[in-house]
Amino acid sequence: MRAVQLRDYDGKPESITVAEIPVPHPGPGEVLVKVFASPINPSDLMFIQGLYGFKKSLPAVPGFEGSGTVVEGGPGLLPRFLKGKRVACAAADPKISGGMWAEYVVTSAKLCIPLQKSIDLEQAAAMLVNPFTAWALMDIARRDGHRAVVQTAAASALGRMIVRLGHRFSIPVVNVVRRAEQVELLRGMGSEYIVNSSDAGYEDTLRDLCRKIGATIGFDAVAGEMSAIVLRAQPPDARLLVYGGLSLAACQADPASLIFERKRLEGFWLTGWLRSKNILSQLRLARQVQALLGSDLKTDIQAKVRLEDAARALQQYASNMTAGKVLLTP
Amino acid sequence: MRAVQLRDYDGKPESITVAEIPVPHPGPGEVLVKVFASPINPSDLMFIQGLYGFKKSLPAVPGFEGSGTVVEGGPGLLPRFLKGKRVACAAADPKISGGMWAEYVVTSAKLCIPLQKSIDLEQAAAMLVNPFTAWALMDIARRDGHRAVVQTAAASALGRMIVRLGHRFSIPVVNVVRRAEQVELLRGMGSEYIVNSSDAGYEDTLRDLCRKIGATIGFDAVAGEMSAIVLRAQPPDARLLVYGGLSLAACQADPASLIFERKRLEGFWLTGWLRSKNILSQLRLARQVQALLGSDLKTDIQAKVRLEDAARALQQYASNMTAGKVLLTP
Repeated sequence: MRAVQLRDYDGKPESITVAEIPVPHPGPGEVLVKVFASPINPSDLMFIQGLYGFKKSLPAVPGFEGSGTVVEGGPGLLPRFLKGKRVACAAADPKISGGMWAEYVVTSAKLCIPLQKSIDLEQAAAMLVNPFTAWALMDIARRDGHRAVVQTAAASALGRMIVRLGHRFSIPVVNVVRRAEQVELLRGMGSEYIVNSSDAGYEDTLRDLCRKIGATIGFDAVAGEMSAIVLRAQPPDARLLVYGGLSLAACQADPASLIFERKRLEGFWLTGWLRSKNILSQLRLARQVQALLGSDLKTDIQAKVRLEDAARALQQYASNMTAGKVLLTP
Repeated sequence: MRAVQLRDYDGKPESITVAEIPVPHPGPGEVLVKVFASPINPSDLMFIQGLYGFKKSLPAVPGFEGSGTVVEGGPGLLPRFLKGKRVACAAADPKISGGMWAEYVVTSAKLCIPLQKSIDLEQAAAMLVNPFTAWALMDIARRDGHRAVVQTAAASALGRMIVRLGHRFSIPVVNVVRRAEQVELLRGMGSEYIVNSSDAGYEDTLRDLCRKIGATIGFDAVAGEMSAIVLRAQPPDARLLVYGGLSLAACQADPASLIFERKRLEGFWLTGWLRSKNILSQLRLARQVQALLGSDLKTDIQAKVRLEDAARALQQYASNMTAGKVLLTP
């Protein structure tokens, strides 16, 4: 099969090539998926530069999520159940050697979500990393009874899904962005609470807002000093869930926030969250997310390119993420 | 009454004086305690320099804990119950205006622990900040089923209590210290796992130890980069409880530790912990801690001084904390 090959974590375009490699075979609990499409995500950009939370041995096939059809199942109930089904699936796990930028991938059956008839494989290709994460985060907020949410990187594709889910579930969201255009973008979506971290004194505004509306849970994709700023702004007993590290810096947290206001800094990882769910919960989640895939959880797609053009596609996406996802189609 | 007065948070000796001020009156849920003795703790040193988690309005009476006799109770069941009793008590709360370096203090009845006959008021003076915190932390470790513990500042008075409780409850403790003498001190106490943060490559040793013995809970008094180092060393699903900030820096945590290994950074504050307990739990805890006050939870006392000598006593304690507590006796 043809597959994109990452030959070095140096981030250079020439380290990304296409090669002919053997089709892998599924082991126990695994499935072989014939890939239809796979998007480029910020986490893929981090991975190919060696900046993600783990590395795979080189040469590696990148691509953390995608869509396709299960053509073969390894031993186990779930692989058998999935055989022949169209799925959205993830390969974002150090335990999974292959990636989705290839004609075929072997992944854990637990990381495959069977698709409803109404869902096309193109929308399904980017269904996990953004729609599922957005759903999962808001699900945690609702289950744990949080009255309001604060989030960083609020103008990202995922951030905008959180904004729309906030409207749907009547959970106010305080949105932290860093540019005036992003303020306008979110205002156009009907956001009431927007804070621009480029404004002088924004920390006070953020604190007043978070405490006024009770944003006892936060979602942070930035890390670094921003984590400390958001934690400080949140009311007592708050949690901050870190799901990304766009600043490339360690998260910070004031001892005083942790000690005297009983705040907590935690992480969220979709792969771990999915693996922890049983098949019935997964099917329910799959139904809920797919029902919103055409609306609140819709993914904008800016281009579809062949595997051979992966290096060029990476540059196109990196230079304009807000235009939508770039899909690789084997 | 005579009371030590903090006139400025500048940390200068001349900002600490003694004055004659009115005896305060207890409100609902509060008691008036005639103070027998009050120690100087690291948290007091932080407080008088304005570096603690909160400030009181000036002039303020410092002193976060001490012992004495309840001579008057405000309205409420608990104040009535405590009247006439000898107690250990805390005033480490922004809601409590007075401090313990005075002849009398008004504090919350919930922050008073009635003393058994066998306990003298001198040992009781330093019973809360160190013995209770040590007990509380190990109580959390045991209740939540952690197999082992890692702690920073392990040679401190509190750290040594954790070491002894670890022996008592057969919970292995990985101890992080920063000097060779401290390694010797802990080795002399029978500690098996000691890591010196001044040694090159200590992070690898710490990681190997924490993962080998399963130190899924940690206690950190240092903060700053040390928090990230300990969290990184701990096995997946670990918690790190920050109870101090000796480095005066914000806690750090790698996004990867939080996201991919599901680790959590939290705080521990004795005052909040005590307030959250009902009277029966408090009495049980009081019994448990007092039973060990002559052994595992013994406090070394290096000197007793009058209120008038508070400024000098602060310097004496700050220059040699490991020699034991300095008690102020009104």
